[in-house]
Amino acid sequence: MVNKKKIVNDPVYGFINIPTELLYDLIEHPYFQRLRRIKQLGLTHFVYPAAHHTRFQHALGAMYLTGEAISVLRSKEHDITPDEAEAVMIAILLHDIGHGPFSHALEHTIAGQLSHEELSLLFMHELNRQFDNRLEMAIAVFENKYPKRFLYQLVSGQLDMDRLDYLRRDSFFTGVTEGVIGSDRIIKMLNIVDDNLVVDAKGIYSVEKFLIARRLMYWQVYLHKTVIAAEQLLLKILHRAKKLAGQGEDLFGPPWLRYFLYAPGEPAASELLEQFARLDDNDIVTSAKVWMDHPDPILSTLCKQLLHRELFRIELQNEPFAEEYIMEKTMEFRSASGLDEQDARYFVFTDHISNNLYNTGDEEIKILTNRGVLVDIGQASDILNFPVLSKTVTKYFLCYPKKNTIHWR
Amino acid sequence: MVNKKKIVNDPVYGFINIPTELLYDLIEHPYFQRLRRIKQLGLTHFVYPAAHHTRFQHALGAMYLTGEAISVLRSKEHDITPDEAEAVMIAILLHDIGHGPFSHALEHTIAGQLSHEELSLLFMHELNRQFDNRLEMAIAVFENKYPKRFLYQLVSGQLDMDRLDYLRRDSFFTGVTEGVIGSDRIIKMLNIVDDNLVVDAKGIYSVEKFLIARRLMYWQVYLHKTVIAAEQLLLKILHRAKKLAGQGEDLFGPPWLRYFLYAPGEPAASELLEQFARLDDNDIVTSAKVWMDHPDPILSTLCKQLLHRELFRIELQNEPFAEEYIMEKTMEFRSASGLDEQDARYFVFTDHISNNLYNTGDEEIKILTNRGVLVDIGQASDILNFPVLSKTVTKYFLCYPKKNTIHWR
Amino acid sequence: MVNKKKIVNDPVYGFINIPTELLYDLIEHPYFQRLRRIKQLGLTHFVYPAAHHTRFQHALGAMYLTGEAISVLRSKEHDITPDEAEAVMIAILLHDIGHGPFSHALEHTIAGQLSHEELSLLFMHELNRQFDNRLEMAIAVFENKYPKRFLYQLVSGQLDMDRLDYLRRDSFFTGVTEGVIGSDRIIKMLNIVDDNLVVDAKGIYSVEKFLIARRLMYWQVYLHKTVIAAEQLLLKILHRAKKLAGQGEDLFGPPWLRYFLYAPGEPAASELLEQFARLDDNDIVTSAKVWMDHPDPILSTLCKQLLHRELFRIELQNEPFAEEYIMEKTMEFRSASGLDEQDARYFVFTDHISNNLYNTGDEEIKILTNRGVLVDIGQASDILNFPVLSKTVTKYFLCYPKKNTIHWR
Amino acid sequence: MVNKKKIVNDPVYGFINIPTELLYDLIEHPYFQRLRRIKQLGLTHFVYPAAHHTRFQHALGAMYLTGEAISVLRSKEHDITPDEAEAVMIAILLHDIGHGPFSHALEHTIAGQLSHEELSLLFMHELNRQFDNRLEMAIAVFENKYPKRFLYQLVSGQLDMDRLDYLRRDSFFTGVTEGVIGSDRIIKMLNIVDDNLVVDAKGIYSVEKFLIARRLMYWQVYLHKTVIAAEQLLLKILHRAKKLAGQGEDLFGPPWLRYFLYAPGEPAASELLEQFARLDDNDIVTSAKVWMDHPDPILSTLCKQLLHRELFRIELQNEPFAEEYIMEKTMEFRSASGLDEQDARYFVFTDHISNNLYNTGDEEIKILTNRGVLVDIGQASDILNFPVLSKTVTKYFLCYPKKNTIHWR
Repeated sequence: MVNKKKIVNDPVYGFINIPTELLYDLIEHPYFQRLRRIKQLGLTHFVYPAAHHTRFQHALGAMYLTGEAISVLRSKEHDITPDEAEAVMIAILLHDIGHGPFSHALEHTIAGQLSHEELSLLFMHELNRQFDNRLEMAIAVFENKYPKRFLYQLVSGQLDMDRLDYLRRDSFFTGVTEGVIGSDRIIKMLNIVDDNLVVDAKGIYSVEKFLIARRLMYWQVYLHKTVIAAEQLLLKILHRAKKLAGQGEDLFGPPWLRYFLYAPGEPAASELLEQFARLDDNDIVTSAKVWMDHPDPILSTLCKQLLHRELFRIELQNEPFAEEYIMEKTMEFRSASGLDEQDARYFVFTDHISNNLYNTGDEEIKILTNRGVLVDIGQASDILNFPVLSKTVTKYFLCYPKKNTIHWR
Repeated sequence: MVNKKKIVNDPVYGFINIPTELLYDLIEHPYFQRLRRIKQLGLTHFVYPAAHHTRFQHALGAMYLTGEAISVLRSKEHDITPDEAEAVMIAILLHDIGHGPFSHALEHTIAGQLSHEELSLLFMHELNRQFDNRLEMAIAVFENKYPKRFLYQLVSGQLDMDRLDYLRRDSFFTGVTEGVIGSDRIIKMLNIVDDNLVVDAKGIYSVEKFLIARRLMYWQVYLHKTVIAAEQLLLKILHRAKKLAGQGEDLFGPPWLRYFLYAPGEPAASELLEQFARLDDNDIVTSAKVWMDHPDPILSTLCKQLLHRELFRIELQNEPFAEEYIMEKTMEFRSASGLDEQDARYFVFTDHISNNLYNTGDEEIKILTNRGVLVDIGQASDILNFPVLSKTVTKYFLCYPKKNTIHWR
Repeated sequence: MVNKKKIVNDPVYGFINIPTELLYDLIEHPYFQRLRRIKQLGLTHFVYPAAHHTRFQHALGAMYLTGEAISVLRSKEHDITPDEAEAVMIAILLHDIGHGPFSHALEHTIAGQLSHEELSLLFMHELNRQFDNRLEMAIAVFENKYPKRFLYQLVSGQLDMDRLDYLRRDSFFTGVTEGVIGSDRIIKMLNIVDDNLVVDAKGIYSVEKFLIARRLMYWQVYLHKTVIAAEQLLLKILHRAKKLAGQGEDLFGPPWLRYFLYAPGEPAASELLEQFARLDDNDIVTSAKVWMDHPDPILSTLCKQLLHRELFRIELQNEPFAEEYIMEKTMEFRSASGLDEQDARYFVFTDHISNNLYNTGDEEIKILTNRGVLVDIGQASDILNFPVLSKTVTKYFLCYPKKNTIHWR
Repeated sequence: MVNKKKIVNDPVYGFINIPTELLYDLIEHPYFQRLRRIKQLGLTHFVYPAAHHTRFQHALGAMYLTGEAISVLRSKEHDITPDEAEAVMIAILLHDIGHGPFSHALEHTIAGQLSHEELSLLFMHELNRQFDNRLEMAIAVFENKYPKRFLYQLVSGQLDMDRLDYLRRDSFFTGVTEGVIGSDRIIKMLNIVDDNLVVDAKGIYSVEKFLIARRLMYWQVYLHKTVIAAEQLLLKILHRAKKLAGQGEDLFGPPWLRYFLYAPGEPAASELLEQFARLDDNDIVTSAKVWMDHPDPILSTLCKQLLHRELFRIELQNEPFAEEYIMEKTMEFRSASGLDEQDARYFVFTDHISNNLYNTGDEEIKILTNRGVLVDIGQASDILNFPVLSKTVTKYFLCYPKKNTIHWR
């Protein structure tokens, strides 16, 4: 009876088992339930309409893969105690609990300078308090302070269970089937040498394919032009709303959204957590819909653009845009809209994105050769251009309104 | 360039092509874009966490299958003009455009006595007006007033493209793989006899399997106990909110939700449409979250139950519950909560559901035998018990709070 | 190192683990390796070109599902010792080891009156001898002589692992995706009551769907007209060859095939086994190809028909064919071919098939209701017509040559 | 009626339509039907037990993809006449018709110096004769003599429909899901510039993934150690049989196999074709089984090794094996077996394989950039190391018997 409740249907892996009481209770906790209301891929559904999957599903999936990895490692005679197994599964389950609305899109915009990792840690400490310190080991693993370092690498590393799940899950729900990775095969090839998570020699082709699939997902999904245009629009809406709030304008919104819009400085952690734990995608969408009728024409126009899917036109290139070109686009818009230079920047602007976030600080994936020696994947693979792969790629974009934008009223 | 925009990735069918300009423009219209924010299966994700797919995807999918059916019928020498093809695809695309938040869950609760079909028709007429009467034929097909009756049957019938898509799509996203139907095989078997959509003889086993898969989805997904418990909770929240609104209490919410909560009588169609066109799932969720702090303890408690997933315990049976049993449960709750009889009904209540909605009024599926004769599937299939299958099944349920409900604050 | 060899890739389930040394050694044994050369579905690939999967794969798959079922049952607190687990896995692994060429098609034609089950048992006893009596318990389970009767039911019953695997596997390889059953869900619902394998109440819809999928596979695949026509042709070839052999004609063929063609009476078990263990699909095909040039025109014509896929035309009906109609077809053929009545029967003949083989003698599937009572599925399911489902269905067929048969030389 | 026969179930693509009468008649021809009896991957099923798919399925699949490519190219306003479409589909359908038993494994061993491509061309010319010269255009396309060169590139090039099908199909049937390529997406990206088949810019990541998947399939499947060991064993058997035949020894086998074993010189094309058209996998297996009892101990031992799956141990490395090491292994074997040096070479031998066969002579894949310029994929992709990718990889292997080889009798 109790057991039945602990099996979850997942279209990606079939059935996911929730192995311990503590894991079950954490999943049932409102902090974690909130993740049901945070889309994994923000506004990506504007391009891939099925991409409505949530952080909740991803966290369960990553926990499932971690369980699979533990089984494999144990079958290769590596010792992992039940407590350690639970700890690493808790760590991966909660690794994204600090994500705000629309996942990455609004990071740093709402909760000031705090990253989602820092917020996750705040949540973990609070849960640890509520659960009588039973998350101590999980937190140690999450912070890489636990003696068995390979446990940390399952949670956070170049080939961690987080990445394995999100690549596979995001491929599944976007319908970009080429991004599908053989997570089960990679996991079967995991091993431990000198407290390091490594990959058995015959797994090298799977790792190559994983890296290529990840790259494909980057360009086809995560950094898709239209997705960036939509997320930039959302950012501009929040910036404008914050500015208006700072000027004392009244803005519709649930209290916790207003808390962050009107927040004067850095709040205390406990207060921040209380407010943040209420906030999710719905608040942003509902508020933006109401703001479509706000007297501020900038805010109302931006919101209409978002809700009616009249996104910016966006240009992408490898170098910064020429000042003249930006000026030209700005002037065009200004003469059409009558906005001054400062306000026009909500509609015509340039910025850059880079995907180094996903590489720096990580260590190289190690391959365990048939002779028992460890080599970096960059050495083991003769086919991938690792200097290029690991280089920070920076793309500059320029956004401006489409000419044919007509607002529906 | 233009072409590229017209292919949509869909995890269920791969690629969906949008075949005409008019269909494309309708999809881009804010009325249709709203469907991105209406979950196909309401609160089903409380049980099947991946069931976040939307009416938007379903409508596109049904349009795709309709295009496939048209190809098959044309290959069997049945005449369908390009205008008719576009009309039937428009009709299926828009057949659900009148769905309110959480699809079926809140039907009749928000927009008074109007069903989603009636609302869909209102939307179609308004779109017809906006698109210079180019939806005339589509509306005729939708209302079964167009001479070629089989076109209507593609949109609405025992084996229509709506059902084929939603069964397959709902199976896909819930992960209940057994509900997957062979939509492509059924479509390959479609034919027309005397202006009726029929199924070729060798398709009989596929139709049997379709009916069994549908039944499985009913009991495993659509009428899942926990899903009903969640939807009843949502209904109670709306009822309480409407009651409080009627008493003049102030309730947080976007204007269009307040419009429906405070609406005194039946509004004019145009005004109703304007307000309804703004309403979606987000508004309900955000408002319910705010109402968790409302001074009315009934509303706040119900909302907390929903947001923290502390659902009612629910019992299901084939007969009405005995008065004594209901009384017993009510008294238990009253003595624990201190609520009076009337208020206790928000927490302890009985009602029934029946799945005849999905059968009555529909005509039997016809099988075209190898000798060219039409027979009802009920006759052609010796294996399915059709009297039972077509009988209205009524299930009575009794909801009451779980004992162990502790609110998180 | 040793472990790696014991994981097998299977497109249906992903990875199959071979859990014990003994199972591994049995799989490596030439008796079992022979199953690589016996197609699971005989000549079905004439209709479904991908249906080249073998008894070898099926046996591994059934073993895998048995392992899954054991895990589920153990998780429900039922005691299964490691020895019992190995025994039941051996029993299912070897349950089809006595299949001859083209699986069912040639049963009783080659090895006299012995069924494949009897031959399987002969093989098991011989393997038991070779493996120092380590198969005793497996044989007891296979023969339903082991105390825990539910183990036998996993191997042979209405819902055994044999059926679960072959339905899913045959659907997969034929491409008849509608036949796919939710084997994992059914297995998750298995339970044991009073030493009987039963299905938990909520598995009832899955069982219904399993039965419907099986029926679909029967009519769409197993009893497909063209498949029957092909198998009948193969039978006629063997009959003719046996007749010619009986007349002392020299026939090409490997020694073991000649052994069975020229065998005067019932051979001793050990000799039969030795010969039978060499025989597989390849021998039949290669010999039939050579026989295309045999001086006997009946044999050569039949073989050409098979190899050039010029199958009989086949009519199917529920009643025996009228004598006059058979006579008419026979006379037509006789006048065209000049064959006498007896010889004409190789080309014009009637017979019947019935699918009761798959039901009779089996016990009803039991459902464990929520109240802990066992009921037959026939009672528990109101939707399936069980009297019809369990009735022996007999179909009569009449085969005769296609008019347009022109032989390629 | 006629139409129904022309749809084929394929587990990989669902349904395959046979679009013209001529294509249908070619498929029905015994030359093509023979491909049902030639496994696509030879002995690979020794490692991946489901890899029993045939050249027949592959040819149909490649024809299907070609039809898809034609649709895409036509939708991009490129002119392809119905005759050209049929011609290119015939060319791809028949491109592998000259494959002998076990596909590549026995190439050059049976039919002397003729490659399978040359044999395919012989078959095509003979079919052209039989079909009243209706294959002229198809042959021109196949030989790259037809003016529209891009048609040839669909049949044979770095990104032809042959490769797209076999990679996807081989992945499917081996269960090596990581090798699955997005053939539909690549096809959607095809275009024609200056009579060259090219890939639209946004297809670059799909091409990268295709190349990586191909590489993965090479190392994981096509060049799998055990597969090589099995194929080498088969080669040794044929070599020994040919040698014995040359010495006048009598060898069991169907006439056409004996024809090739005893053939004194290069036969005339027509005679060769007649014999070759009868030969398939079955002949080799059945004969090898009979040869297990041949008085020649070398032949009988090799055959037993094959049939009982007692494959050679195989070592693989990048450099030639040291003479001393080979000598050491040879002497070990000689002292155990008593064979002389020459005969020992059937059991202890070294050779090399290289995968340049699949690259040399092909032209680079061209990418059509957004600015309308063509660039080589090697330039367009910064991530793949093309010099390495296109370099001929040579692997040296050394085979010798496993110590624990015990023959079953």
